[in-house]
Amino acid sequence: MSKFGLYGKITARSGQRDALVAVLLEAAAMMQFVPRCELYIVNNSATEPDAVWVTEVWSSPADHEASLLRDETKTLIERGMPLIAGGERIEIVPIGGKGLPTDYR
Amino acid sequence: MSKFGLYGKITARSGQRDALVAVLLEAAAMMQFVPRCELYIVNNSATEPDAVWVTEVWSSPADHEASLLRDETKTLIERGMPLIAGGERIEIVPIGGKGLPTDYR
Repeated sequence: MSKFGLYGKITARSGQRDALVAVLLEAAAMMQFVPRCELYIVNNSATEPDAVWVTEVWSSPADHEASLLRDETKTLIERGMPLIAGGERIEIVPIGGKGLPTDYR
Repeated sequence: MSKFGLYGKITARSGQRDALVAVLLEAAAMMQFVPRCELYIVNNSATEPDAVWVTEVWSSPADHEASLLRDETKTLIERGMPLIAGGERIEIVPIGGKGLPTDYR
């Protein structure tokens, strides 16, 4: 089974990026207790003042899907939604490298 | 000093993605010995059959710049170049989360 990776771009409503980042860092803290979430890093865009990118790696696509159904996740999504103007996602299949907690190569 | 992050998209010449991935995994193996390279993960695009994405996190922008001047890096870039049709990059500023080897939050 392949891992599942995601670069998720979230564009905050004007002036709301810091508030959005705070919610996403709470999500990241929650992920410390989700072993099959291997990576969840919150980043500001270096070029777009309202944009945030989240780097995610999951042990499988099903693990990512399951996380969206957790009550804690739904609560955080509800809190984040009023801060969000839009988004896009880039889906990737992690192969190997430095920094994957479980490195098959 | 902020960390420096990069999503680097590399589009291989037709049919050359696996060969390109092999070179990038060699680069990733080299990064195990570069302590201020915190993350270097090689991923296939899930949607574009010739595209590879590399997720990089460096302790600072200067550490990334310095890595490009290493002889080992130049040798790998020379080997990769004939396999490459194009590319683009998304620059990010990592803030925190799960999976950063040095986590300030």
